[in-house]
Amino acid sequence: METLKHYTLQDILQMDRFFRMHFVNTISGYKSAMLVGTQGHRGAPNLGIFNSVIHLGASPPLLGFSVRPLTVPRHTYHNILAKRFFTINHVDRENLTAAHQTSANYPEHVSEFKACGLTPWYSEKLPAPYVEESKIRIGLEFIEEHHIRANGNILIVGKVVEVHIPEIFIKPTGHIDLPAAQSVAVAGLDTYYAGDLIGRLAYARPDQAPRWEETGE
Amino acid sequence: METLKHYTLQDILQMDRFFRMHFVNTISGYKSAMLVGTQGHRGAPNLGIFNSVIHLGASPPLLGFSVRPLTVPRHTYHNILAKRFFTINHVDRENLTAAHQTSANYPEHVSEFKACGLTPWYSEKLPAPYVEESKIRIGLEFIEEHHIRANGNILIVGKVVEVHIPEIFIKPTGHIDLPAAQSVAVAGLDTYYAGDLIGRLAYARPDQAPRWEETGE
Repeated sequence: METLKHYTLQDILQMDRFFRMHFVNTISGYKSAMLVGTQGHRGAPNLGIFNSVIHLGASPPLLGFSVRPLTVPRHTYHNILAKRFFTINHVDRENLTAAHQTSANYPEHVSEFKACGLTPWYSEKLPAPYVEESKIRIGLEFIEEHHIRANGNILIVGKVVEVHIPEIFIKPTGHIDLPAAQSVAVAGLDTYYAGDLIGRLAYARPDQAPRWEETGE
Repeated sequence: METLKHYTLQDILQMDRFFRMHFVNTISGYKSAMLVGTQGHRGAPNLGIFNSVIHLGASPPLLGFSVRPLTVPRHTYHNILAKRFFTINHVDRENLTAAHQTSANYPEHVSEFKACGLTPWYSEKLPAPYVEESKIRIGLEFIEEHHIRANGNILIVGKVVEVHIPEIFIKPTGHIDLPAAQSVAVAGLDTYYAGDLIGRLAYARPDQAPRWEETGE
Protein backbone atom coordinates (compact mmCIF):
# COMPACT_ATOMS: atom_id res chain seq x y z
CA MET A 1 0.00 0.00 0.00
CA GLU A 2 1.32 3.41 -1.00
CA THR A 3 1.90 5.98 1.72
CA LEU A 4 -0.07 9.10 0.81
CA LYS A 5 1.78 12.23 1.94
CA HIS A 6 -0.17 15.34 2.80
CA TYR A 7 1.63 18.67 2.52
CA THR A 8 0.03 21.87 3.73
CA LEU A 9 1.08 25.31 2.46
CA GLN A 10 3.02 25.68 5.72
CA ASP A 11 4.89 22.42 5.02
CA ILE A 12 5.76 23.63 1.50
CA LEU A 13 7.01 26.99 2.74
CA GLN A 14 9.19 25.21 5.31
CA MET A 15 10.81 22.85 2.80
CA ASP A 16 14.50 23.30 2.01
CA ARG A 17 14.70 25.97 -0.71
CA PHE A 18 16.00 23.68 -3.45
CA PHE A 19 13.71 20.80 -2.50
CA ARG A 20 10.73 23.20 -2.67
CA MET A 21 11.90 24.63 -5.99
CA HIS A 22 11.99 21.19 -7.60
CA PHE A 23 8.80 20.01 -5.88
CA VAL A 24 6.66 22.98 -6.90
CA ASN A 25 8.20 23.24 -10.37
CA THR A 26 7.52 19.58 -11.18
CA ILE A 27 4.11 19.08 -9.55
CA SER A 28 2.32 20.84 -12.40
CA GLY A 29 3.55 18.12 -14.77
CA TYR A 30 5.13 18.08 -18.20
CA LYS A 31 5.73 21.32 -20.07
CA SER A 32 7.16 22.22 -23.45
CA ALA A 33 10.79 23.31 -23.54
CA MET A 34 11.14 26.33 -25.80
CA LEU A 35 13.84 28.84 -26.70
CA VAL A 36 12.62 32.44 -26.82
CA GLY A 37 14.64 34.66 -29.14
CA THR A 38 14.65 38.45 -28.89
CA GLN A 39 16.72 41.40 -30.01
CA GLY A 40 17.87 44.30 -27.84
CA HIS A 41 17.15 47.92 -28.71
CA ARG A 42 20.66 48.15 -30.18
CA GLY A 43 20.18 44.90 -32.09
CA ALA A 44 21.96 42.38 -29.84
CA PRO A 45 20.39 38.93 -30.14
CA ASN A 46 19.23 37.28 -26.92
CA LEU A 47 18.09 33.74 -26.21
CA GLY A 48 16.57 32.04 -23.18
CA ILE A 49 14.91 28.72 -22.39
CA PHE A 50 11.34 28.75 -21.02
CA ASN A 51 8.98 26.04 -19.74
CA SER A 52 5.81 28.12 -19.46
CA VAL A 53 4.56 28.42 -23.03
CA ILE A 54 0.80 27.93 -23.24
CA HIS A 55 -1.79 27.99 -26.00
CA LEU A 56 -4.23 30.88 -25.60
CA GLY A 57 -6.25 30.71 -28.80
CA ALA A 58 -6.31 29.38 -32.36
CA SER A 59 -8.02 32.18 -34.25
CA PRO A 60 -6.16 34.45 -34.05
CA PRO A 61 -3.32 32.13 -33.02
CA LEU A 62 -2.13 33.31 -29.59
CA LEU A 63 0.58 31.91 -27.33
CA GLY A 64 1.68 33.08 -23.92
CA PHE A 65 4.62 32.48 -21.61
CA SER A 66 5.67 33.87 -18.25
CA VAL A 67 8.80 35.75 -17.30
CA ARG A 68 10.08 36.17 -13.78
CA PRO A 69 9.70 39.34 -11.71
CA LEU A 70 11.61 42.48 -12.74
CA THR A 71 13.70 42.52 -9.57
CA VAL A 72 16.70 42.28 -11.93
CA PRO A 73 16.80 43.13 -15.66
CA ARG A 74 15.08 40.41 -17.71
CA HIS A 75 16.52 40.80 -21.19
CA THR A 76 13.78 38.75 -22.83
CA TYR A 77 11.14 41.05 -21.37
CA HIS A 78 12.89 44.35 -22.11
CA ASN A 79 13.71 43.26 -25.66
CA ILE A 80 10.12 42.25 -26.36
CA LEU A 81 8.92 45.65 -25.22
CA ALA A 82 11.62 47.38 -27.28
CA LYS A 83 11.12 45.50 -30.56
CA ARG A 84 7.52 44.21 -30.17
CA PHE A 85 8.43 40.82 -31.67
CA PHE A 86 9.90 37.54 -30.44
CA THR A 87 10.43 33.98 -31.58
CA ILE A 88 9.60 30.63 -29.99
CA ASN A 89 11.82 27.74 -31.12
CA HIS A 90 11.42 24.07 -30.24
CA VAL A 91 14.03 22.43 -28.06
CA ASP A 92 14.76 18.97 -29.41
CA ARG A 93 17.08 16.10 -28.56
CA GLU A 94 19.86 17.52 -30.75
CA ASN A 95 19.93 21.09 -29.44
CA LEU A 96 18.96 20.19 -25.86
CA THR A 97 22.25 20.67 -24.01
CA ALA A 98 22.93 23.96 -25.82
CA ALA A 99 19.36 25.10 -25.13
CA HIS A 100 19.64 24.30 -21.41
CA GLN A 101 22.95 26.17 -21.25
CA THR A 102 21.16 29.43 -22.23
CA SER A 103 19.78 29.44 -18.67
CA ALA A 104 23.24 30.28 -17.33
CA ASN A 105 23.54 33.82 -16.05
CA TYR A 106 25.62 35.40 -18.82
CA PRO A 107 26.56 39.10 -18.62
CA GLU A 108 24.39 41.36 -20.78
CA HIS A 109 27.08 41.90 -23.46
CA VAL A 110 27.47 38.16 -24.05
CA SER A 111 25.14 36.62 -26.65
CA GLU A 112 23.67 33.32 -25.46
CA PHE A 113 23.75 32.24 -29.11
CA LYS A 114 27.53 32.52 -29.29
CA ALA A 115 28.17 31.31 -25.75
CA CYS A 116 26.01 28.20 -26.19
CA GLY A 117 26.91 27.35 -29.77
CA LEU A 118 23.56 28.18 -31.38
CA THR A 119 23.06 30.14 -34.61
CA PRO A 120 20.77 33.17 -35.00
CA TRP A 121 18.61 32.95 -38.11
CA TYR A 122 16.42 35.77 -39.39
CA SER A 123 13.36 35.87 -41.60
CA GLU A 124 12.36 39.07 -43.38
CA LYS A 125 9.26 39.35 -41.22
CA LEU A 126 10.47 40.31 -37.80
CA PRO A 127 13.29 41.88 -35.78
CA ALA A 128 14.01 38.88 -33.57
CA PRO A 129 16.38 35.96 -34.07
CA TYR A 130 15.20 32.42 -34.66
CA VAL A 131 17.37 29.44 -33.72
CA GLU A 132 18.74 27.73 -36.82
CA GLU A 133 19.22 24.50 -34.84
CA SER A 134 15.50 24.36 -34.01
CA LYS A 135 13.41 22.44 -36.53
CA ILE A 136 10.17 24.21 -35.58
CA ARG A 137 10.24 28.02 -35.33
CA ILE A 138 7.39 30.36 -34.51
CA GLY A 139 7.46 34.16 -35.01
CA LEU A 140 5.24 36.27 -32.78
CA GLU A 141 4.12 39.85 -32.39
CA PHE A 142 3.82 41.11 -28.82
CA ILE A 143 0.15 41.77 -28.04
CA GLU A 144 -0.26 42.33 -24.32
CA GLU A 145 1.27 41.68 -20.89
CA HIS A 146 -0.29 40.81 -17.57
CA HIS A 147 1.51 41.33 -14.27
CA ILE A 148 0.74 38.68 -11.64
CA ARG A 149 0.20 40.82 -8.56
CA ALA A 150 0.93 37.97 -6.13
CA ASN A 151 4.60 37.67 -7.10
CA GLY A 152 5.45 40.03 -9.96
CA ASN A 153 5.68 37.38 -12.70
CA ILE A 154 4.56 38.61 -16.10
CA LEU A 155 2.49 36.75 -18.70
CA ILE A 156 3.55 37.81 -22.19
CA VAL A 157 0.96 37.26 -24.91
CA GLY A 158 1.98 37.07 -28.56
CA LYS A 159 0.16 36.58 -31.84
CA VAL A 160 1.73 34.06 -34.22
CA VAL A 161 2.75 35.90 -37.40
CA GLU A 162 4.64 33.06 -39.09
CA VAL A 163 5.72 29.46 -38.64
CA HIS A 164 8.69 27.64 -40.16
CA ILE A 165 8.34 23.88 -39.98
CA PRO A 166 9.48 20.87 -42.00
CA GLU A 167 6.45 19.58 -43.85
CA ILE A 168 7.06 15.98 -42.78
CA PHE A 169 6.14 16.83 -39.18
CA ILE A 170 2.61 17.95 -40.06
CA LYS A 171 -0.03 15.22 -40.11
CA PRO A 172 -3.00 15.36 -42.52
CA THR A 173 -5.19 16.38 -39.55
CA GLY A 174 -3.02 19.41 -38.77
CA HIS A 175 -1.44 17.81 -35.69
CA ILE A 176 2.29 18.29 -35.35
CA ASP A 177 4.12 15.02 -34.78
CA LEU A 178 6.21 16.01 -31.77
CA PRO A 179 8.07 12.68 -31.37
CA ALA A 180 9.03 12.77 -35.08
CA ALA A 181 10.37 16.31 -34.58
CA GLN A 182 12.17 15.02 -31.46
CA SER A 183 10.77 17.97 -29.52
CA VAL A 184 11.26 17.53 -25.79
CA ALA A 185 9.10 17.99 -22.73
CA VAL A 186 10.49 19.28 -19.45
CA ALA A 187 9.47 18.87 -15.83
CA GLY A 188 10.60 21.72 -13.66
CA LEU A 189 13.86 23.40 -14.53
CA ASP A 190 16.13 20.56 -15.52
CA THR A 191 14.50 17.19 -16.21
CA TYR A 192 13.87 16.46 -19.88
CA TYR A 193 11.66 13.82 -21.48
CA ALA A 194 10.88 12.49 -24.93
CA GLY A 195 7.22 11.90 -25.71
CA ASP A 196 6.05 8.31 -26.10
CA LEU A 197 2.70 8.29 -27.93
CA ILE A 198 -0.17 6.72 -26.00
CA GLY A 199 -2.78 7.67 -28.57
CA ARG A 200 -5.30 10.18 -29.79
CA LEU A 201 -8.80 10.19 -28.32
CA ALA A 202 -11.82 11.15 -30.43
CA TYR A 203 -13.69 14.37 -29.74
CA ALA A 204 -15.73 13.63 -26.59
CA ARG A 205 -19.53 13.66 -26.78
CA PRO A 206 -21.96 13.18 -23.87
CA ASP A 207 -23.70 10.23 -25.51
CA GLN A 208 -20.60 8.33 -26.67
CA ALA A 209 -18.01 6.30 -24.81
CA PRO A 210 -14.34 7.39 -25.16
CA ARG A 211 -12.83 6.04 -28.38
CA TRP A 212 -9.22 5.93 -29.63
CA GLU A 213 -8.53 7.34 -33.11
CA GLU A 214 -6.27 5.69 -35.62
CA THR A 215 -2.99 7.60 -35.63
CA GLY A 216 -1.14 5.50 -38.18
CA GLU A 217 1.59 4.53 -35.69
CA MET B 1 16.45 17.07 -47.69
CA GLU B 2 13.45 18.17 -45.63
CA THR B 3 11.00 20.62 -47.20
CA LEU B 4 10.67 23.62 -44.88
CA LYS B 5 7.15 25.00 -44.97
CA HIS B 6 6.58 28.67 -44.29
CA TYR B 7 3.16 29.68 -43.01
CA THR B 8 2.21 33.33 -42.63
CA LEU B 9 -0.56 34.52 -40.31
CA GLN B 10 -2.74 34.80 -43.41
CA ASP B 11 -2.03 31.16 -44.30
CA ILE B 12 -2.96 30.08 -40.77
CA LEU B 13 -6.20 32.05 -40.76
CA GLN B 14 -7.13 30.48 -44.11
CA MET B 15 -6.53 26.88 -42.95
CA ASP B 16 -9.53 24.58 -42.60
CA ARG B 17 -10.96 25.22 -39.13
CA PHE B 18 -10.13 21.80 -37.67
CA PHE B 19 -6.71 21.64 -39.32
CA ARG B 20 -5.90 25.07 -37.83
CA MET B 21 -7.22 24.04 -34.42
CA HIS B 22 -4.91 21.02 -34.28
CA PHE B 23 -1.97 22.88 -35.86
CA VAL B 24 -2.05 25.83 -33.47
CA ASN B 25 -2.88 23.72 -30.43
CA THR B 26 0.05 21.35 -30.99
CA ILE B 27 2.73 23.77 -32.18
CA SER B 28 3.41 24.99 -28.66
CA GLY B 29 4.52 21.46 -27.72
CA TYR B 30 3.83 19.12 -24.84
CA LYS B 31 1.60 20.22 -21.97
CA SER B 32 0.43 18.64 -18.76
CA ALA B 33 -3.02 17.07 -18.76
CA MET B 34 -4.86 18.03 -15.59
CA LEU B 35 -8.36 17.71 -14.20
CA VAL B 36 -9.66 20.86 -12.52
CA GLY B 37 -12.27 20.21 -9.83
CA THR B 38 -14.68 22.89 -8.62
CA GLN B 39 -17.95 23.17 -6.75
CA GLY B 40 -20.96 25.25 -7.78
CA HIS B 41 -22.54 27.82 -5.47
CA ARG B 42 -25.18 25.20 -4.56
CA GLY B 43 -22.52 22.54 -3.99
CA ALA B 44 -22.61 20.60 -7.29
CA PRO B 45 -19.20 19.12 -8.11
CA ASN B 46 -17.74 19.98 -11.53
CA LEU B 47 -14.76 18.57 -13.37
CA GLY B 48 -12.96 19.53 -16.55
CA ILE B 49 -9.72 18.61 -18.33
CA PHE B 50 -7.20 21.39 -19.05
CA ASN B 51 -3.89 21.51 -20.92
CA SER B 52 -2.81 25.02 -19.91
CA VAL B 53 -1.52 24.63 -16.37
CA ILE B 54 1.71 26.58 -15.82
CA HIS B 55 4.04 27.17 -12.92
CA LEU B 56 4.06 30.81 -11.83
CA GLY B 57 6.19 30.75 -8.69
CA ALA B 58 7.55 28.50 -5.95
CA SER B 59 7.38 30.73 -2.89
CA PRO B 60 4.50 31.18 -2.46
CA PRO B 61 3.63 28.23 -4.71
CA LEU B 62 1.50 29.61 -7.55
CA LEU B 63 -0.02 27.84 -10.53
CA GLY B 64 -2.09 29.26 -13.36
CA PHE B 65 -4.30 27.91 -16.11
CA SER B 66 -6.45 29.48 -18.78
CA VAL B 67 -10.17 29.17 -19.39
CA ARG B 68 -11.93 30.01 -22.63
CA PRO B 69 -13.92 33.19 -23.24
CA LEU B 70 -17.19 33.75 -21.38
CA THR B 71 -19.29 33.68 -24.55
CA VAL B 72 -21.07 30.72 -22.92
CA PRO B 73 -21.16 29.80 -19.20
CA ARG B 74 -17.85 28.25 -18.12
CA HIS B 75 -18.69 26.27 -15.01
CA THR B 76 -15.09 25.96 -13.91
CA TYR B 77 -14.71 29.74 -13.98
CA HIS B 78 -18.01 30.59 -12.29
CA ASN B 79 -17.46 27.98 -9.59
CA ILE B 80 -13.96 29.26 -8.81
CA LEU B 81 -15.33 32.77 -8.37
CA ALA B 82 -18.19 31.45 -6.22
CA LYS B 83 -16.16 29.22 -3.90
CA ARG B 84 -12.65 30.73 -4.21
CA PHE B 85 -11.01 27.28 -4.27
CA PHE B 86 -10.26 24.63 -6.88
CA THR B 87 -8.27 21.43 -7.27
CA ILE B 88 -5.77 20.28 -9.90
CA ASN B 89 -5.51 16.50 -10.30
CA HIS B 90 -3.03 14.61 -12.46
CA VAL B 91 -4.30 12.71 -15.46
CA ASP B 92 -2.49 9.38 -15.66
CA ARG B 93 -2.62 6.30 -17.85
CA GLU B 94 -5.32 4.69 -15.73
CA ASN B 95 -7.80 7.57 -15.56
CA LEU B 96 -7.00 8.94 -19.04
CA THR B 97 -10.09 7.94 -21.01
CA ALA B 98 -12.42 9.03 -18.20
CA ALA B 99 -10.49 12.31 -17.87
CA HIS B 100 -10.74 13.03 -21.61
CA GLN B 101 -14.48 12.29 -21.51
CA THR B 102 -14.98 15.23 -19.10
CA SER B 103 -14.43 17.50 -22.14
CA ALA B 104 -17.82 16.42 -23.54
CA ASN B 105 -20.44 19.12 -23.38
CA TYR B 106 -22.64 17.82 -20.54
CA PRO B 107 -25.67 19.85 -19.43
CA GLU B 108 -25.12 21.90 -16.28
CA HIS B 109 -27.13 19.57 -14.02
CA VAL B 110 -25.00 16.53 -14.99
CA SER B 111 -21.90 15.93 -12.88
CA GLU B 112 -18.88 15.08 -15.02
CA PHE B 113 -17.75 12.89 -12.11
CA LYS B 114 -20.79 10.65 -12.39
CA ALA B 115 -21.05 10.78 -16.18
CA CYS B 116 -17.37 9.86 -16.66
CA GLY B 117 -17.01 7.34 -13.83
CA LEU B 118 -14.74 9.37 -11.57
CA THR B 119 -15.11 9.78 -7.82
CA PRO B 120 -15.19 13.10 -5.96
CA TRP B 121 -12.97 13.11 -2.90
CA TYR B 122 -12.86 15.90 -0.34
CA SER B 123 -10.26 17.02 2.16
CA GLU B 124 -11.24 19.13 5.16
CA LYS B 125 -9.34 22.09 3.76
CA LEU B 126 -11.36 23.31 0.82
CA PRO B 127 -14.81 23.40 -0.82
CA ALA B 128 -13.79 21.77 -4.10
CA PRO B 129 -13.72 18.10 -5.11
CA TYR B 130 -10.51 16.20 -5.76
CA VAL B 131 -10.44 13.19 -8.08
CA GLU B 132 -9.99 9.98 -6.11
CA GLU B 133 -8.62 8.25 -9.23
CA SER B 134 -5.78 10.81 -9.51
CA LYS B 135 -2.65 9.83 -7.64
CA ILE B 136 -1.39 13.44 -7.36
CA ARG B 137 -3.87 16.06 -6.14
CA ILE B 138 -3.26 19.76 -5.57
CA GLY B 139 -5.60 22.09 -3.66
CA LEU B 140 -5.53 25.78 -4.55
CA GLU B 141 -6.97 29.06 -3.38
CA PHE B 142 -8.05 31.48 -6.12
CA ILE B 143 -5.77 34.52 -6.05
CA GLU B 144 -6.34 36.59 -9.17
CA GLU B 145 -7.61 36.49 -12.76
CA HIS B 146 -6.33 38.17 -15.90
CA HIS B 147 -8.50 38.67 -18.95
CA ILE B 148 -6.64 38.37 -22.24
CA ARG B 149 -7.98 41.35 -24.17
CA ALA B 150 -7.12 39.88 -27.58
CA ASN B 151 -9.61 37.01 -27.34
CA GLY B 152 -11.33 36.97 -23.95
CA ASN B 153 -9.45 33.98 -22.51
CA ILE B 154 -8.89 34.21 -18.78
CA LEU B 155 -5.78 33.26 -16.82
CA ILE B 156 -6.76 31.96 -13.37
CA VAL B 157 -4.01 32.16 -10.74
CA GLY B 158 -4.15 30.01 -7.62
CA LYS B 159 -1.98 29.52 -4.56
CA VAL B 160 -1.27 25.92 -3.59
CA VAL B 161 -2.74 25.30 -0.13
CA GLU B 162 -2.19 21.54 0.03
CA VAL B 163 -0.81 18.60 -1.92
CA HIS B 164 -1.75 14.92 -1.65
CA ILE B 165 0.86 12.66 -3.22
CA PRO B 166 2.14 9.12 -2.70
CA GLU B 167 5.55 9.43 -1.06
CA ILE B 168 7.17 7.00 -3.52
CA PHE B 169 6.84 9.56 -6.35
CA ILE B 170 8.97 12.19 -4.59
CA LYS B 171 12.70 11.97 -5.22
CA PRO B 172 15.23 12.98 -2.54
CA THR B 173 15.87 16.19 -4.53
CA GLY B 174 12.19 17.19 -4.39
CA HIS B 175 11.54 16.30 -8.04
CA ILE B 176 8.32 14.42 -8.71
CA ASP B 177 8.89 11.28 -10.75
CA LEU B 178 6.24 11.82 -13.42
CA PRO B 179 6.84 8.55 -15.33
CA ALA B 180 6.57 6.57 -12.06
CA ALA B 181 3.28 8.33 -11.35
CA GLN B 182 2.24 7.53 -14.95
CA SER B 183 1.20 11.15 -15.38
CA VAL B 184 0.57 11.98 -19.01
CA ALA B 185 1.49 14.83 -21.31
CA VAL B 186 -0.85 16.10 -24.00
CA ALA B 187 -0.34 17.86 -27.32
CA GLY B 188 -3.30 19.92 -28.36
CA LEU B 189 -6.72 18.68 -27.38
CA ASP B 190 -6.55 14.96 -27.90
CA THR B 191 -3.09 13.42 -28.33
CA TYR B 192 -1.62 11.91 -25.18
CA TYR B 193 1.96 10.88 -24.42
CA ALA B 194 3.88 9.13 -21.68
CA GLY B 195 7.17 10.72 -20.68
CA ASP B 196 10.37 8.87 -21.54
CA LEU B 197 13.21 10.25 -19.40
CA ILE B 198 16.11 11.73 -21.34
CA GLY B 199 17.89 13.01 -18.26
CA ARG B 200 18.44 15.82 -15.81
CA LEU B 201 20.90 18.59 -16.66
CA ALA B 202 22.93 20.29 -13.94
CA TYR B 203 22.25 23.93 -13.05
CA ALA B 204 23.82 25.90 -15.91
CA ARG B 205 26.75 28.22 -15.18
CA PRO B 206 28.49 30.54 -17.68
CA ASP B 207 31.92 29.01 -17.05
CA GLN B 208 30.88 25.33 -17.19
CA ALA B 209 29.89 23.05 -20.04
CA PRO B 210 26.45 21.37 -19.82
CA ARG B 211 26.58 18.27 -17.62
CA TRP B 212 24.07 15.43 -17.03
CA GLU B 213 23.18 14.63 -13.43
CA GLU B 214 22.82 11.12 -12.08
CA THR B 215 19.10 10.34 -11.82
CA GLY B 216 19.36 6.81 -10.56
CA GLU B 217 17.54 5.39 -13.60
